[in-house]
Amino acid sequence: MLFGSDNWAGAAPEIIEAIARANDGPAPAYGADALSARVEARFSELFEKDVAVFLVATGGAANGLALSALVKPWGMIVCHEESHIQMDECAGPEFFTGGAKLLPLKGEAAKLSAATVEAALAGFPERPPHGAPAQALSLTQASECGAVYAPGEIAALAQAAHARGLKVHMDGARFANALVHLGCAPADITWKAGVDALSFGGTKNGCIAAEAVVFFDRTLAEDFIFRRKRAGHLWSKQRFIAAQFDAYLADGLWLKLAARANAMAARLSAGLAGIEGVRLWYETQANAVFASFPDGVAEKLYEAGAVFYPWVTPGDPAAGRMKRLICSFATQDEDVDAFVDAVRRAVGA
Amino acid sequence: MLFGSDNWAGAAPEIIEAIARANDGPAPAYGADALSARVEARFSELFEKDVAVFLVATGGAANGLALSALVKPWGMIVCHEESHIQMDECAGPEFFTGGAKLLPLKGEAAKLSAATVEAALAGFPERPPHGAPAQALSLTQASECGAVYAPGEIAALAQAAHARGLKVHMDGARFANALVHLGCAPADITWKAGVDALSFGGTKNGCIAAEAVVFFDRTLAEDFIFRRKRAGHLWSKQRFIAAQFDAYLADGLWLKLAARANAMAARLSAGLAGIEGVRLWYETQANAVFASFPDGVAEKLYEAGAVFYPWVTPGDPAAGRMKRLICSFATQDEDVDAFVDAVRRAVGA
Amino acid sequence: MLFGSDNWAGAAPEIIEAIARANDGPAPAYGADALSARVEARFSELFEKDVAVFLVATGGAANGLALSALVKPWGMIVCHEESHIQMDECAGPEFFTGGAKLLPLKGEAAKLSAATVEAALAGFPERPPHGAPAQALSLTQASECGAVYAPGEIAALAQAAHARGLKVHMDGARFANALVHLGCAPADITWKAGVDALSFGGTKNGCIAAEAVVFFDRTLAEDFIFRRKRAGHLWSKQRFIAAQFDAYLADGLWLKLAARANAMAARLSAGLAGIEGVRLWYETQANAVFASFPDGVAEKLYEAGAVFYPWVTPGDPAAGRMKRLICSFATQDEDVDAFVDAVRRAVGA
Amino acid sequence: MLFGSDNWAGAAPEIIEAIARANDGPAPAYGADALSARVEARFSELFEKDVAVFLVATGGAANGLALSALVKPWGMIVCHEESHIQMDECAGPEFFTGGAKLLPLKGEAAKLSAATVEAALAGFPERPPHGAPAQALSLTQASECGAVYAPGEIAALAQAAHARGLKVHMDGARFANALVHLGCAPADITWKAGVDALSFGGTKNGCIAAEAVVFFDRTLAEDFIFRRKRAGHLWSKQRFIAAQFDAYLADGLWLKLAARANAMAARLSAGLAGIEGVRLWYETQANAVFASFPDGVAEKLYEAGAVFYPWVTPGDPAAGRMKRLICSFATQDEDVDAFVDAVRRAVGA
Repeated sequence: MLFGSDNWAGAAPEIIEAIARANDGPAPAYGADALSARVEARFSELFEKDVAVFLVATGGAANGLALSALVKPWGMIVCHEESHIQMDECAGPEFFTGGAKLLPLKGEAAKLSAATVEAALAGFPERPPHGAPAQALSLTQASECGAVYAPGEIAALAQAAHARGLKVHMDGARFANALVHLGCAPADITWKAGVDALSFGGTKNGCIAAEAVVFFDRTLAEDFIFRRKRAGHLWSKQRFIAAQFDAYLADGLWLKLAARANAMAARLSAGLAGIEGVRLWYETQANAVFASFPDGVAEKLYEAGAVFYPWVTPGDPAAGRMKRLICSFATQDEDVDAFVDAVRRAVGA
Repeated sequence: MLFGSDNWAGAAPEIIEAIARANDGPAPAYGADALSARVEARFSELFEKDVAVFLVATGGAANGLALSALVKPWGMIVCHEESHIQMDECAGPEFFTGGAKLLPLKGEAAKLSAATVEAALAGFPERPPHGAPAQALSLTQASECGAVYAPGEIAALAQAAHARGLKVHMDGARFANALVHLGCAPADITWKAGVDALSFGGTKNGCIAAEAVVFFDRTLAEDFIFRRKRAGHLWSKQRFIAAQFDAYLADGLWLKLAARANAMAARLSAGLAGIEGVRLWYETQANAVFASFPDGVAEKLYEAGAVFYPWVTPGDPAAGRMKRLICSFATQDEDVDAFVDAVRRAVGA
Repeated sequence: MLFGSDNWAGAAPEIIEAIARANDGPAPAYGADALSARVEARFSELFEKDVAVFLVATGGAANGLALSALVKPWGMIVCHEESHIQMDECAGPEFFTGGAKLLPLKGEAAKLSAATVEAALAGFPERPPHGAPAQALSLTQASECGAVYAPGEIAALAQAAHARGLKVHMDGARFANALVHLGCAPADITWKAGVDALSFGGTKNGCIAAEAVVFFDRTLAEDFIFRRKRAGHLWSKQRFIAAQFDAYLADGLWLKLAARANAMAARLSAGLAGIEGVRLWYETQANAVFASFPDGVAEKLYEAGAVFYPWVTPGDPAAGRMKRLICSFATQDEDVDAFVDAVRRAVGA
Repeated sequence: MLFGSDNWAGAAPEIIEAIARANDGPAPAYGADALSARVEARFSELFEKDVAVFLVATGGAANGLALSALVKPWGMIVCHEESHIQMDECAGPEFFTGGAKLLPLKGEAAKLSAATVEAALAGFPERPPHGAPAQALSLTQASECGAVYAPGEIAALAQAAHARGLKVHMDGARFANALVHLGCAPADITWKAGVDALSFGGTKNGCIAAEAVVFFDRTLAEDFIFRRKRAGHLWSKQRFIAAQFDAYLADGLWLKLAARANAMAARLSAGLAGIEGVRLWYETQANAVFASFPDGVAEKLYEAGAVFYPWVTPGDPAAGRMKRLICSFATQDEDVDAFVDAVRRAVGA
């Protein structure tokens, strides 16, 4: 009954095997190895476009470094008020960018709409050098609340951003979960829809530590090797990140893992739906369920060994009432069913 | 008919004379001169408390440096969404603090309420090391919309902040205008109400370039000389800032200047109040009037030589409709009356 | 014949096995897992002192983060001009510290002497707020040129540093190689000799990506969790770093690996010593040999498939003439012997 | 007998008068005033080239901001080890640039030679992304030790820098003193010799606080308005800096002031030259004299009311023995003669 986060899961066995396999004698350091080259090329295939790819170990690094390539140190980044970059990275984007400003906006299920972004930007007319100029829009796919942007939504957002000269960043820590939900091609929700740079996550979906920063326009990546290096995010033995992605992307493993996590969330959502007093907040599209329980129920669940965390929406008068339940590739039917049973019992009692 | 900003005014004659007077032979550099010492002591008298004072030339420097002493580089600063630090300093606070995050909040007339701050902080429970920890609250006195915090309001806000471990910063670019409106002592709206650090402005109220960072708790100022120096804000010939404050604070000059600016705003407000179709947005408490005019009127006023700017509230669907009209110590009755007449004519036409 | 760097080696089999073993079901994220706790406790045993330990993936992160905890953003870090922090981290320490200054000093075999440090500090008298105040001394053990500081040397250096209020940092990317050479206890060359913070390296000596920042005074570590997080260096699945250290420190594996690397360097050094025209620059103490060859020899060795790099000493008129040859735990007797033979042939030709 | 620094002097009367004159009614803020425009145009005349000019109040701001426009946050700035940016700005360049590295080099009389720079750069071959790439050379004209670069020396240095892709910055805090010594045109020692950006000082030579950053290539200035603003260095009432330069550059005032300071230093140098036991260290070319006195003499001079400071050369075993004596535009013949007499008496006693 562990629904605390998808990063509680270990790694998929294929990932561990790939790491072991990569340990086959010497190889050039700092990404000059053959496996890194192969994996980088693999990303261009995956996205049906020549892309610049940089491997790092954490999502915070991927986001911060990607954003630092899109905005000036005095630029402004428009994002959702519940986004990871705003709420969960300890002012990391401000650190990596050298002081850029984040502008947090509201939106249902942690998604932004083009209308919201346009209205916000209207409220920030260019007044050089007084206001911090808006230079990037950051979207999270799937969102922090498990909602998925459709290709058309992304295109509309990107259009609003590009019209004002902003670059578009996508935090794809759960990119696979979104993709599986949509059933489209990676290109459809990235560069074809106007995304300029993507944090492509592997860690939450079965890797041990593997994230890739993908630039769909190579000119944006010009200084990236310096940015990654000085931040301590260039691995000397980079083949061990590359190996993870090599297995992750082979034979659709990444999509299988995400499909399982999503299916478990759907099962959980369905199981909770019928229980009196349980409120489901958002449509379950990816691998997270947001629910609130009658008074006292969460406590009983915690006692029964369940793990999950309250979700705090900035400014919500009922902050913490809503709970986030996340499934991972490792979640089993029995985990879900046991939890649903426990909820039923707790509510019934 | 110049109501663009109070910094369009030059300096009060007494300030210029003081600068000339200070030019009386050699003096130690970098603030070790006698005049600097005298002025610094004067601040302790003014605030009825031993304070640490640091002179700089601009409000942006005062705010950024003050905040950098109150928060860690990964800290969060709670402020109004229309505040100068959020809207007008080109991400300066992020620069000076080394990457702290600003959390912009809403509030009538660019003022925050204790309830708003408390609710916001509730939406940011401490989750070390994930969320950027809230470490400072910044208030603007008078606010960007010319509203003045009463001592009790400040005390309530400071209490909410201190209860969560936040330090309280006051942007006092228009401190004199607020003080004159309230008719209280400087101490009443600063340390007695819980303010920890103050940006005390002189520039907008008759100096050429004179701002003071005032710490009501000396331990907060420990590293300040290094912060000011490395940011290029320590003047070698600091006596020329000190001289401005020396004259500014002598014989109540600063209050006289602010009183005139406030009176002119009151006169302007009263003049506009009776004109059909003109809407006054906020009570005129300090030296600014916020008004909107019927369609086409602003254009006619610009043609007639009036200077004033649209005020943009973030997220306001009618952004720019509202105009800000600022009076200074140099504004004359005739300026105000001519403008009111011009509005009347433009509306009537 | 690969002597390019010790990070060309893969990982020791025990490390890979430990990673696989750690993948045994769910575990709390962000370092709250049992394995992380056990490993952190292990460090206190290792150093015979209660220490604060933080795991990261790269040496650049360990150094930059450690230094950021020891100096203010305007502080000065005294280091060797050939040190990794000065030459090989792309201004990473400046980035992590928020702008601290590095003062590069000279010294034989990339080692500093207490006399050099004292003289340098004498040339930087405290002149607040003008000069950047010296706040840390960083030593590299073993040095970039494979030289090892004896306990007494470290103690003398630390004394010189502490006398002026500087904290002492040790870059221990090759700590194990130094320790094996000295045959002393970890405590002897760290806190007992005056070291305040240590970057304890695992990566170059058989891990895939495992470094630990060790503070011998917990008060220095106060803000470290925030620093690590905002820099993107907190792993969500930290158990996979912990697992590496768990195996690394078990049964003296780390010392065995380092002993082999050192032995291979000694064998290489001995082999080259007798060859006419080959100059060995420094005593071989750890796992590196610095040699120069007669004209044309290096080129022949490259053609024969050998990998090694020129070493560039700042300001050396013969920059690049000297070559660095590094051995790792994976270097075999045959590798060394083949290289020595190749040199002999190339010289003889 | 005040020879502590040229910034002990107040301002030239013409400067004060210009400030008073500029206070003639309202003017647009933030540099949009007519006087600022006129002064900016004046710089293009002065340098016989279309230049981009930005006014600030301090030399530290001018240097830091100028350098931030020339290098990336991970770039390296080559400079003299006694330069102001290295020794006297409290790591300001590191702050403004967002973490660039300064590489301090040696050179007689605080001047660099092309040979030294070339040798240093040879010791920093490009190794992306490992080493911080050298991106700027900073020269000080006149140097911290009062030595002046001839046009040919600057050209040779700039050629060495440009050959490696470095931009050339000149710290011209005492530009006027150098120019007067050389008797050439401003263009001859700046863009015609290869200088890309200049910190043009007014403060030390008779202004109260006036420095200009001059870019000889406008494309380098692209982001400068943002950099200046976010650092709090854009004055709202900028006309009061412009006014200083207006008077400073009118009728050759700046050269007259510098000529007097230089002449006083020459007089001082000549006076000291004949005194037994007094050693003059460098040729007196600008407004500073570097001398050492027999034991006990400095103390007697201090007792007699003289003000001057020891000069500390990094790494000098006799640090502090050498004294710096600076003359300003305000130094009088009698001051110099009285000091020379005092030295003679102290030595004779």
